[in-house]
Order: sequence, then C-alpha cells, then structure tokens
Amino acid sequence: MEISELKITIVGLGLIGGSFSMALRELKPKKLWAVDINQDVLKMAETQGIIDRGFLKPNIPLKNSDVVIISLYPEQTVNFIKNNLNNFKRGAVITDTTGIKDKILTEINNFIRDDLEFIGGHPMAGKEAMGFEFASAEIFKGANYILTPTDKNKEENIKLIEKIVMGIGCKNLIKISPKKHDEIIAYTSQMPHILALALVNSNHIDGLGLFVGDSFRAITRVANINARLWAELLIKNKDNILGQIKSFEDSLINIKKSVMEMDSDGLRRIFEKGSDMRDILWRL
Amino acid sequence: MEISELKITIVGLGLIGGSFSMALRELKPKKLWAVDINQDVLKMAETQGIIDRGFLKPNIPLKNSDVVIISLYPEQTVNFIKNNLNNFKRGAVITDTTGIKDKILTEINNFIRDDLEFIGGHPMAGKEAMGFEFASAEIFKGANYILTPTDKNKEENIKLIEKIVMGIGCKNLIKISPKKHDEIIAYTSQMPHILALALVNSNHIDGLGLFVGDSFRAITRVANINARLWAELLIKNKDNILGQIKSFEDSLINIKKSVMEMDSDGLRRIFEKGSDMRDILWRL
Repeated sequence: MEISELKITIVGLGLIGGSFSMALRELKPKKLWAVDINQDVLKMAETQGIIDRGFLKPNIPLKNSDVVIISLYPEQTVNFIKNNLNNFKRGAVITDTTGIKDKILTEINNFIRDDLEFIGGHPMAGKEAMGFEFASAEIFKGANYILTPTDKNKEENIKLIEKIVMGIGCKNLIKISPKKHDEIIAYTSQMPHILALALVNSNHIDGLGLFVGDSFRAITRVANINARLWAELLIKNKDNILGQIKSFEDSLINIKKSVMEMDSDGLRRIFEKGSDMRDILWRL
Repeated sequence: MEISELKITIVGLGLIGGSFSMALRELKPKKLWAVDINQDVLKMAETQGIIDRGFLKPNIPLKNSDVVIISLYPEQTVNFIKNNLNNFKRGAVITDTTGIKDKILTEINNFIRDDLEFIGGHPMAGKEAMGFEFASAEIFKGANYILTPTDKNKEENIKLIEKIVMGIGCKNLIKISPKKHDEIIAYTSQMPHILALALVNSNHIDGLGLFVGDSFRAITRVANINARLWAELLIKNKDNILGQIKSFEDSLINIKKSVMEMDSDGLRRIFEKGSDMRDILWRL
C-alpha cells in the first residue's frame, strides 16, 4: 500500500509524536489523525494544519486507521493497546517509539488480537526538550531508526513501516531483535546518561566557576533528561543496565587500582587500549 | 616591565609550547628563543620566523632570559629546572603549563634558588592532538588560564605572567591555590576523561554499528588522550583522583540500587536532582 492510501493515527502529540505528525503530513496520507489528552495541543495541531483532526477519545480514529503510531511512555503504550484492544480496525498495523523493546513486546504479544500486528520501533532522534512546542519534522532527517520485528510480523507490514520511516527522512533503518536492541541501547545510550548523572550528582566542591570546561560540558550535556521517562526506561531494561554498570565498575576499578599502586605503565596500557577502542567504536 | 623589553625562552616546542611561541611572537618580545630536543622542530620554528633562535642545549638562552616558559610533562618540568638550576639568569621568572600543580610546586620550591621565582600555570587550552605541527596561536583565544601563585611569589612577577597570559588572548585569568587547583581539576577535567576511558574499555558487545549515536560520541570524545601524559597527571594527583572516584562510585551505586529495587520514585528523584545540578554547573 502507498502512504497516500493510508489512514494514520498518531497517539500522543509530544516531542516525538508531534514531530512524526509534521513529517508525515509532508507525505500526504489519506487521513492523519491524532489522539492526545490535551485539548489545547490538539487544537493547535489542527489549526496549524498538521493533522486533519484531533481526538480526546481514541475509538473513532482507531476504528478507521490502517496504521497507528503510539508515542507514549513505555507503560502507557502497553496500557493504551490493552485498553483499546476492541477499538482497532481489523488488520491494523501498530508501532511505537519507545526506547525499550523486549519487555513491552512480550507484554503486548501476550494479549494482542490475532488480526492486529505490533511492530516495535525506536527512532534514534530527539531533543533535550519535551512537548509538542519543540516538535519538528527535522529531527528525523538523517537519523537512524530501529525496528524490532518478530516472527509474528508479516513481511508486507514490516515493509509498510519501513516505507514510512524512510519517507519521513531517516537515513538508516536497522532491523534487530528486541533483546539485542535492549542490550546495545543499555551500553550506547543509557550508560552515557547514567554516567553523566552520577558525575553531576557526585559534586561536592564549592567554587567550580570557570573550571567547568569543554570535557566536563561534553560529558554532562546529556544529564538534562526527562526524569520520569528515564526512570521507566532503566527499570524496564534492568538486567542489561545492571550488567553494563557491573562491566563499567570493573573497568573503573582497573584505573583506580593503577592510580592507587602508582603503576604508570599499567595506566598507560589502559589509556592506550581505551584510545584505540574509541577510534574503533567511532569508525563503526 | 613591558613584553617588548623581555627576553623569553620557551622550553619544549610541542602543542602547547609551539602555540605559546606563535602567540608570543605577535607581542614582539625583545628576544624569543626555544629549547627542544628535536633539531628539526627548532629549524622549522626558526624558518617560519616563529622564534629568533632554537637551541638543543639550554644554557645560553637560559642565562639571558627574563622569563622562561616550560611546556614539558610534569616530571620533566621538575627535572629541567633541577638540572639547569645554575643556568638561569639572576631574578628570572619561570612558569610551566602542566595540568598538575601541588606536587610539582612543592618539589620545585624545595630546591629552587632564592633569587628565582617559579609561578605555576595551567592553560585550559589544547587539542586532541600532539606536537608542534598542530600548534596554533588560536588555541589561547578566549581560553581560561589558571595561575597558582604562592606566598613565595612577588606581586610584580605575578603581574608580569598575567600580562603575558592576557596578551596571548586568554579571556579569563584565574588565581587559585595549587591544592584547590588539583582538587577541582580532578573533578572537572580528569574524571570526564577517566569515565570516557572506563566506558570504552567496558565494551563487550559485538555489532554496535549504527548504534553509536550522539550521547555516546559526546561522552567518549575525550577518550582519545596522550596516554603517557595522562598516566603521569593522574598518578601525581592520586589522592584527589581516588577521592573523586570514590564519590562517583557512591553516586553510581545510588542509581544501581534504585534500578535493582525497581524504585521508580527514587530514580526520578536522582535524575531530577542531576538535571538541576547540571543546570547549576553549566551556568557557572
């Protein structure tokens, strides 16, 4: 099916859902609806011509939508599908945008209707800001987008979501298992945030003033997060997070031990290995 | 004294020493000499008109210099002064550019001649590169520069180094005690590097590929370091580093414990505190 033949509903007009609707608008779907609990945001999106119509109650748009894109927090995503299970159109394709996949796919696949299909998605895009007022179609341009299809998904439906993802301007589409997604994301995305937060929270020095320089800013930039969302993401990815923290602690202990023993050669080897490893990771 | 009346020697034409000579050249000192162990680098600097003359042996330039700027590794800095103690001109002002201050000031002040004066300096400037070929007068433009004078330093000599520092384009000159410098630097500069290295060294996942995104790059940029220099900096700042690592580990354990106990509220509080703290630190 072509995007111009699709009726699409976005659930949740926050930063990602709002950006999605702006980017989708340009692809001229047959209908583009949105569901949100905030009437003002829906009105704003309607007035700006970003959506055809906004709804506080989801039953009407869901009954008529071929594709539903849910942009809520992880737990809300699961609950939304559960609470509206009888509202979806027969054969509808549902996708999400949360940063955690294994747990929510397992939950959703436990109760989802046989004729519906849920395909997990995770746009590697965002901003250090929340809400529709910061939404922009631009955030997807050149971004990577991860899909975590399972054997419950039909090839034609995966292709349909792929078409949408590439249509809104993403550069790379990566297909990977939900488990692998969560393992990798724990390391490449969640650990940088955890380290940044642990570092700012460990400060006990007065008068830092002009000493807050480039390297400190680089590492702590991501400490500015949506606390509620990140608490949920980390707890839902608990085992991977605890595993990564353990590996990190071991790695930090190696440095600490060399400093404690004033082992200059050992420290140099750790640093040389680290610089090489960084170059390898950056080339990926 | 005006800079135009000064004979100045730079010891070590690496990234910082080379940049210093390029920036000083524009201030037209009476003489600008350099000492290095690499004849090719000295020739290059002479040919490019960056210095008046280069020397493999330091005795002649030192005997005639009012100001000596040493840009060597910390241990080398101490040894250079010790080995050339009788070569310095009577009343000369000596400064350095290393990132560690308390230990080397204590060592130098133990043996320095009474008529000489050593004023510790630390330009908060640099590049992820080493050597004269990457030197540029531009690295000081807008940078912060730290001086760690002690009660052994005369006000007029501190003023002289200040004049040079502001003359080469630095924006802020910060005067602070050597002990406080090392305590703060451990947190704002050395910890970001340590965390970046510990993170890249903790990787045990194959196929990271396109998952290496913005937050990972931001935090690991500084993992590309001069291993020899950093091993020395960390060992010379041992007590502060071990203290900071301990604080960081405690802070990380708080996050780990909340994830382990699936304490969503606790995690939110930690993250909210962290986001607030980051905003405070960034405003400094």
